[in-house]
Amino acid sequence: MQLGLSVSDSDVSSFTPLVVLELADDTKAEAITWLLNRIRDKQQNGGAELLVNQLLFPAQDDQKPNPNVFLVGSTLQRLLNGAEDVGLFKEFQDGTMRGFTYANRESFKDFNGDGEGVLSDAECQYIIKHELDTLRAKNEEHVPGYPKLKLYPGKSVVRRLQSKGVLIQYFPLHNKEDLKRLSFSWYKKFKLSFQPLDDIRHYFGEGLALYFGFLEYFTFALVPMALIGIPYYLFDWEDYDKYVLFAVFNLVWSTVFLEVWKRCSATLAYGWGTLSRKKAFEEPRAGFHGALGFNPVTGREEPVYPSSKRQLRIYLVSVPFVLLCLYLSFYVMMVYFDMEFWAINIYNENPDIATSILLFVPSIIYAVVIEIMNLLYRFAAEFLTDWENHRLESSFQNHLVLKVLVFNFVNCFASLFYIAFVMQDMVLLRQSLATLLITSQILNQVMEAFLPYWLQRRRNKKVHKRMRRLMGDKELPLLGQVQLETEMNTYLGTFDDYLEQFLLFGYVSLFSCVYPLAAVLVVLNNITEVYSDAFKMCHVFKRPFSEPATNIGVWQLAFETMSIIAVVTNCALIGLSPQMKAYFPESDTQLILIVVTIEHVLLAFKFILAFVIPDVPKHIQVNLAKLEFDSLEALKKRKILEATET
Amino acid sequence: MQLGLSVSDSDVSSFTPLVVLELADDTKAEAITWLLNRIRDKQQNGGAELLVNQLLFPAQDDQKPNPNVFLVGSTLQRLLNGAEDVGLFKEFQDGTMRGFTYANRESFKDFNGDGEGVLSDAECQYIIKHELDTLRAKNEEHVPGYPKLKLYPGKSVVRRLQSKGVLIQYFPLHNKEDLKRLSFSWYKKFKLSFQPLDDIRHYFGEGLALYFGFLEYFTFALVPMALIGIPYYLFDWEDYDKYVLFAVFNLVWSTVFLEVWKRCSATLAYGWGTLSRKKAFEEPRAGFHGALGFNPVTGREEPVYPSSKRQLRIYLVSVPFVLLCLYLSFYVMMVYFDMEFWAINIYNENPDIATSILLFVPSIIYAVVIEIMNLLYRFAAEFLTDWENHRLESSFQNHLVLKVLVFNFVNCFASLFYIAFVMQDMVLLRQSLATLLITSQILNQVMEAFLPYWLQRRRNKKVHKRMRRLMGDKELPLLGQVQLETEMNTYLGTFDDYLEQFLLFGYVSLFSCVYPLAAVLVVLNNITEVYSDAFKMCHVFKRPFSEPATNIGVWQLAFETMSIIAVVTNCALIGLSPQMKAYFPESDTQLILIVVTIEHVLLAFKFILAFVIPDVPKHIQVNLAKLEFDSLEALKKRKILEATET
Repeated sequence: MQLGLSVSDSDVSSFTPLVVLELADDTKAEAITWLLNRIRDKQQNGGAELLVNQLLFPAQDDQKPNPNVFLVGSTLQRLLNGAEDVGLFKEFQDGTMRGFTYANRESFKDFNGDGEGVLSDAECQYIIKHELDTLRAKNEEHVPGYPKLKLYPGKSVVRRLQSKGVLIQYFPLHNKEDLKRLSFSWYKKFKLSFQPLDDIRHYFGEGLALYFGFLEYFTFALVPMALIGIPYYLFDWEDYDKYVLFAVFNLVWSTVFLEVWKRCSATLAYGWGTLSRKKAFEEPRAGFHGALGFNPVTGREEPVYPSSKRQLRIYLVSVPFVLLCLYLSFYVMMVYFDMEFWAINIYNENPDIATSILLFVPSIIYAVVIEIMNLLYRFAAEFLTDWENHRLESSFQNHLVLKVLVFNFVNCFASLFYIAFVMQDMVLLRQSLATLLITSQILNQVMEAFLPYWLQRRRNKKVHKRMRRLMGDKELPLLGQVQLETEMNTYLGTFDDYLEQFLLFGYVSLFSCVYPLAAVLVVLNNITEVYSDAFKMCHVFKRPFSEPATNIGVWQLAFETMSIIAVVTNCALIGLSPQMKAYFPESDTQLILIVVTIEHVLLAFKFILAFVIPDVPKHIQVNLAKLEFDSLEALKKRKILEATET
Repeated sequence: MQLGLSVSDSDVSSFTPLVVLELADDTKAEAITWLLNRIRDKQQNGGAELLVNQLLFPAQDDQKPNPNVFLVGSTLQRLLNGAEDVGLFKEFQDGTMRGFTYANRESFKDFNGDGEGVLSDAECQYIIKHELDTLRAKNEEHVPGYPKLKLYPGKSVVRRLQSKGVLIQYFPLHNKEDLKRLSFSWYKKFKLSFQPLDDIRHYFGEGLALYFGFLEYFTFALVPMALIGIPYYLFDWEDYDKYVLFAVFNLVWSTVFLEVWKRCSATLAYGWGTLSRKKAFEEPRAGFHGALGFNPVTGREEPVYPSSKRQLRIYLVSVPFVLLCLYLSFYVMMVYFDMEFWAINIYNENPDIATSILLFVPSIIYAVVIEIMNLLYRFAAEFLTDWENHRLESSFQNHLVLKVLVFNFVNCFASLFYIAFVMQDMVLLRQSLATLLITSQILNQVMEAFLPYWLQRRRNKKVHKRMRRLMGDKELPLLGQVQLETEMNTYLGTFDDYLEQFLLFGYVSLFSCVYPLAAVLVVLNNITEVYSDAFKMCHVFKRPFSEPATNIGVWQLAFETMSIIAVVTNCALIGLSPQMKAYFPESDTQLILIVVTIEHVLLAFKFILAFVIPDVPKHIQVNLAKLEFDSLEALKKRKILEATET
């Protein structure tokens, strides 16, 4: 069976493979032929017009790998056309960002003779992914050879194959040369420098580059807090005036740096061409289903699903479910505190070795239960958000993030809130905060870097061994690379990375007036985090498809909400402190009123600050307005042309 | 001296006069000739290409009126071209709103054979105003005949003439037929019906129509509050549970109706074509000055002024000045309360007639001082905002509104706050609130409707008498109308009307749990307010130029801020009430903590609500996205055309 050209290392030069497509090894031949034809077919026939070849092995073996691995590539012209289809924005000759068009390609800045320089690697792969995702069924009633895999006009072929397990996965290939260069400038040279964000974006796309940009920015923003926090620890300052000062600085500073980040991310996103791309023009996500209709904005045929139904699902099912889970989480926490008291009582009554071991039992049980609840909840949240049937991937992500975020926040901080405001034990609070922060950092580093690295090394060795057995001493870099990357773990997006930073921000800001050293710990953690995350992206996970991101999305809101909650908690902590109470010995009332007033003033100040600082820098506002003005003028001109034609 | 065609009532039919231009009666002839030529000159020569004729009087008299009154009109084609220049949006054949283009005029819905129906009266006058305002100097070094009136290329001629008093005023003429029809459907038939907002917009433009829309919406929104408030008054409910319930309903309701108003105003503005018009394309306001440069967005020549300089002026001069004024206002209030106590003390020591009269002296002095301060402050605010040199009229208005708003808020409510939270005298608070509300309503009605009506009647009679003396028994409707309208007062914009509604909203919401009847009074006031404002617009003031408004602008923010402050004040009032204190006899602390908690929950609820309710209705979002999509596609197409041409 020979399906078109085959790629072995001898004739790689025919095209550059960009994306790997792995079908199940028992896929029927007619389905494969059909799929490859659809991928190769011309665009006017509804095909993707891409290059695709099977990966062939020189020798066969009883331990043979999956033969149905295909490499997808494309001609440069097709990619440039695709860039127009997906609406990429590129730097124009005049320095502004404009929607890329094939016809006008030579007016873009990086366009050299052949056009190689315009599209980054990540963009090429994004375009191919987009073309594969939007490869839609025509008149086929089912996938050839699979009568049960029903199709209807407009249904995404790739998604249908994926949902039934015929298509196992598709992922972009690493570019070994670029990767080497990137990883050198990124994390291999140990010197003080910023991360090469443009290179990261070039290789991994905007979403990841923004994450690393935020990680860097956040770490730098914490440095002033850390510097001010160190003397509190060194000199054992217990003076409450100083703590209040620290807390106020913290609150104002966190507002300012979150506002300034918006400007930074707008600048980055403008330079990367994602700021002007419109959300409404996004293709519907592959998992979106509905009756076939017409998109009211673009006029293109696509599934439609009434948003009222989605709203009902969100408000009648998802929201109550989340609230129930939060209640459960609180309930478990209360049981934990009961067990804790019970254990302490038993120990106090009869202090021996057996009962002193018993002291640790509640914490262990609680930790295990929390982990299990987190896992189950994450699973349920993904299921529910999928069931809500969001049209856009970004909207799906936002709803998922919101669900997981709220639950994680409660799970992580509920016990600290309880200790702070119900038990009012500041020593225990500081102790728990430090323990939680340090353990979670150590656990994270192990789980994120060392464990995957170790697993990856083992896998590497295994694959190399198998390759050597398969092909003897022949050097077959492409075959080996594909085999290796096929077995790598899939990177599930920036979600967990942002979540970690979000929780760290919570530890720093929520109780900052109790434990000023938190910022120092977080800064130290994040410096290693940059290296371990960079390494993880380059060598542990499969290369992810680029995500065109404009900003950090729902995380901006999450961080801002956290900083508002922090104002409330810090004011309350200051009000609760015995030193503060000593100032108002005769009446609590006066103290509380003063604290509440300060809190309101701080909150008002935060909102005014957020209002006064513009979210997008002036020069980018001007460029965006210019683009809009030009396109409105163009619309007028087109109408004049149309009018003169008729 | 004959300057072009003259208009007397015999040959009015030659063109429809739309705008009146009044020059000083000692204006030099060469300046008049030059100005008229510039207005009549073709557009390619930098003229306005409008029709302009002098208003001639049949007889001369020693009490002759100003001869230098000119009527400006335009051909229909020029107006349609002008509609494209100012970027009007009109309903397209497919029901969406699109930027109007002359070339494509026949594809717009209301375009009949000759094109009469497309532009409303207000739009025609707006276009003429725009063309006059943007009539710019070419190479003239000064106005002919006035060597001191320096000009430079690009300077607005009309503005220069106006700033030196050569141009006294220019204003749009009323259309007697339309006005009759509008005023009949608006306020002359006393039946329950909505206002004819589309007709109002047609006659007065979007800004005013939005004000009347808001007035109507706000009044309807207050009806539920009023209905719930009536039994409290009738049955003398002093039960605090009920007051708390009323306050909570009030707070949630005010959030909901402000959010829903955003959707309503977006719907109105979309239908009127102002929602899609871009702020950045506004011509700079006539008073804006700066070195001549190029607009970075449109590429057109216009004055530029660095925004950093403006920021410096705002933050280093205006903000400190406003703060100083606020401090002064507080200081005056404290002096007033001191005087009040001093008067009461004297009266108590020696109660006779002289001292009982003395009791009223502080209030009278305070009221007079407040009025004087308001006047002086208003003057200073206008001067400062002008000095800040804002590029756009909207930005100028926003800064002026913000300045005046803050000061008026403090002046109006500071004494109520003092009584509520420092003196904690709820009976006096209710009394002061009722007195302030009722007196301000009565004063407003008198100042806004009866007084101007009476003045207008006197003026009408005078002009009619003069006309009769001038022209004998000849019926000259146009001459008489122009004479009459020239002497009418100028309507200074919706500022004072919104300010009144804002202060009324404050009386309703800030202390709603103390005085539930406030909503009833405001509803009654607003019903008469609609009639008196409508009458005022139709018969008391000069017709104002239309303002293309998208929303109620800074007032939305002002009302929202007021509703946030209302949460704080109502919670505090509930916490202060003796009935509430009776629930927690043993400790104030617990009471305060509960009140603060409720306040935080309410505030959080408000923010979540504001976040969850989308600001623009779905179908309008789709239409806006469609417009944007189409214009981006058009930009691409234009580039293809340009690429194929070269």
